Amino acid sequence: MQTIDTKAFGTQAPDAQLEPMEIKRRTVTAHDVAIDILFCGVCHSDLHTAKNDWGGTVYPAVPGHEIVGRITEIGSAVTKFKVGDLAGVGCLVDSCRTCSSCGDDLEQYCLNGSTGTYNGKDKYLNMQTFGGYSERVIVEEHFALHIPENLDLAAVAPLLCAGVTTWSPLIHWKVGPGSKVAVIGLGGLGHMAIKLAKGLGAEVTLFSRTPSKTQDAMDLGADAVIISTDEEAMKAAHGSFDLIIDTVPYVHDVNPYVLTLAISGTLVLVGYLGNLDPMINTVPLILGRKAIAASVIGGIAETQAMLDFCGKHNIVSEIEMIKMQDINAAYERMLKSDVKYRFVIDMESLKNS
Amino acid sequence: MQTIDTKAFGTQAPDAQLEPMEIKRRTVTAHDVAIDILFCGVCHSDLHTAKNDWGGTVYPAVPGHEIVGRITEIGSAVTKFKVGDLAGVGCLVDSCRTCSSCGDDLEQYCLNGSTGTYNGKDKYLNMQTFGGYSERVIVEEHFALHIPENLDLAAVAPLLCAGVTTWSPLIHWKVGPGSKVAVIGLGGLGHMAIKLAKGLGAEVTLFSRTPSKTQDAMDLGADAVIISTDEEAMKAAHGSFDLIIDTVPYVHDVNPYVLTLAISGTLVLVGYLGNLDPMINTVPLILGRKAIAASVIGGIAETQAMLDFCGKHNIVSEIEMIKMQDINAAYERMLKSDVKYRFVIDMESLKNS
Repeated sequence: MQTIDTKAFGTQAPDAQLEPMEIKRRTVTAHDVAIDILFCGVCHSDLHTAKNDWGGTVYPAVPGHEIVGRITEIGSAVTKFKVGDLAGVGCLVDSCRTCSSCGDDLEQYCLNGSTGTYNGKDKYLNMQTFGGYSERVIVEEHFALHIPENLDLAAVAPLLCAGVTTWSPLIHWKVGPGSKVAVIGLGGLGHMAIKLAKGLGAEVTLFSRTPSKTQDAMDLGADAVIISTDEEAMKAAHGSFDLIIDTVPYVHDVNPYVLTLAISGTLVLVGYLGNLDPMINTVPLILGRKAIAASVIGGIAETQAMLDFCGKHNIVSEIEMIKMQDINAAYERMLKSDVKYRFVIDMESLKNS
Repeated sequence: MQTIDTKAFGTQAPDAQLEPMEIKRRTVTAHDVAIDILFCGVCHSDLHTAKNDWGGTVYPAVPGHEIVGRITEIGSAVTKFKVGDLAGVGCLVDSCRTCSSCGDDLEQYCLNGSTGTYNGKDKYLNMQTFGGYSERVIVEEHFALHIPENLDLAAVAPLLCAGVTTWSPLIHWKVGPGSKVAVIGLGGLGHMAIKLAKGLGAEVTLFSRTPSKTQDAMDLGADAVIISTDEEAMKAAHGSFDLIIDTVPYVHDVNPYVLTLAISGTLVLVGYLGNLDPMINTVPLILGRKAIAASVIGGIAETQAMLDFCGKHNIVSEIEMIKMQDINAAYERMLKSDVKYRFVIDMESLKNS
């Protein structure tokens, strides 16, 4: 298969820094679009993959799955895009397209395994996929998203992962006007959960351990903030929420939050992989038909619906722009939660590397 | 308040046997109906309450919340029943009728606390409520159910608890033709879950540890049985079920069953109160938008809907009839799971005690 040399930024080993490298992209085939990358958001998954925190990273690794750019070339069979269009790519660049999940527009749950935008299995080049820390990306048009022209493009980038990860459960659990939603944790995911739930017409409460985040949450649109270490405030919230979006990425006690669910309410984990420690007590679940669920990213159709919704409601992420060369320092700061609320790389900087 | 002496069978202490006793019932008030009890099912909760296994039992205790009988008297404002009608009473005899749960016909989740048919707080007599191991019961007509005339009345009794406990989640999670449902455990709840899910048009699988139950499950209508200790069979079932009704009443590992849920599937616990030990791993939840939920009994409207459905589809419980005087021996046998699948007391026997 023909390939094209492409500038990128990646890492050769778990303990190495990210550095300039050259990767190969396939040339455009019939259903492909080529996207010149303008901005790429920096997700915690980028860092975990670069450092092999979850195991399974194939090196060299080029992270980045919050991609916004412009179409420079289209394949002969492409119908959704034309050259010059804005386009986005999120966490997925392929799936089987034939299983029941794909048939239900839930490519993220493809029964034959979807293909991640990076560190996935590239069926074209028979190697690992490379992400958005690069000049361009080639994807089948099905996995490219239309980007609303009216939004700040850099601030759109994080919608492709952080946005849809919180949007998908909000829609699946039917949040709308009159819904009472709570969000646990105010980071990249949490700040998008607040904005999107608010945009959908819900009353939104943030749970945080950090009193100093109260004003920030209110500025983002939250109606209330509950400091989770305040036992009286937690007790006063018992039975309140139809849906809780739990964005906390590390092990934490979910039981106190279950008590704040309303009858038939659901707490959905979107950030934590591991055992629910301490153990979940079923009594509050059974006495209120409550549920604990989990959800990962979103399908292509719902990602597009979210982008269209954000265009209509003027919703974007809060970002701090960095240059490609700043990525190692940005990772250091992310580990200290020192970012409000998402780093986005100005990919113009890669051209000068 | 005027009362009427009523023959009953109850217990004076956790370690005492059940024995004949006399209790007081209120006389019929405007919204009440008096029911002459014909049959009363024997639920595991009866035994737990008699023995104070959950704490909080007030003695003397008269169990029984699977009540079928005939109306002998109605209050001046009663509109739903007339004298001579069949009537049933399940697990609830009162609730606040004003909170959002009661407004949603979910009296079982009454925010001000519903009143159990036994060991509840009787607002009329300001003492504990007494259950169906008795000659008669007086309840507000709202909490009395119409019983289909075409069914075996003794075998209807367990529908009032075991039936609606499994019916409620089947309806809430929208089971119907095309649904794939699994049931964990084949006892009083499990056998009703199979019959009701099958009646609703679902494909039904039983999970059991006991190979000898296979034929029984098939006879009850199950399409398949998976022996839960058979690792190959469990693996083959991965990703299969839209809804799992988990009727197991003791601590057990839920994780292997989560793996058998389909995308967006829910496992609902209806039998176990306590910690989920071992801990739940979120990875299978997050990679399939799966949920673990719990549910208790059902509301009055859904109990009536279930009874009407059973009348139409000729569904009743599988029972073994006993006399009131056999109750202590029946409890012994229940502790050994030696019943297919529910004891029902022929209350005529109480009149001879």
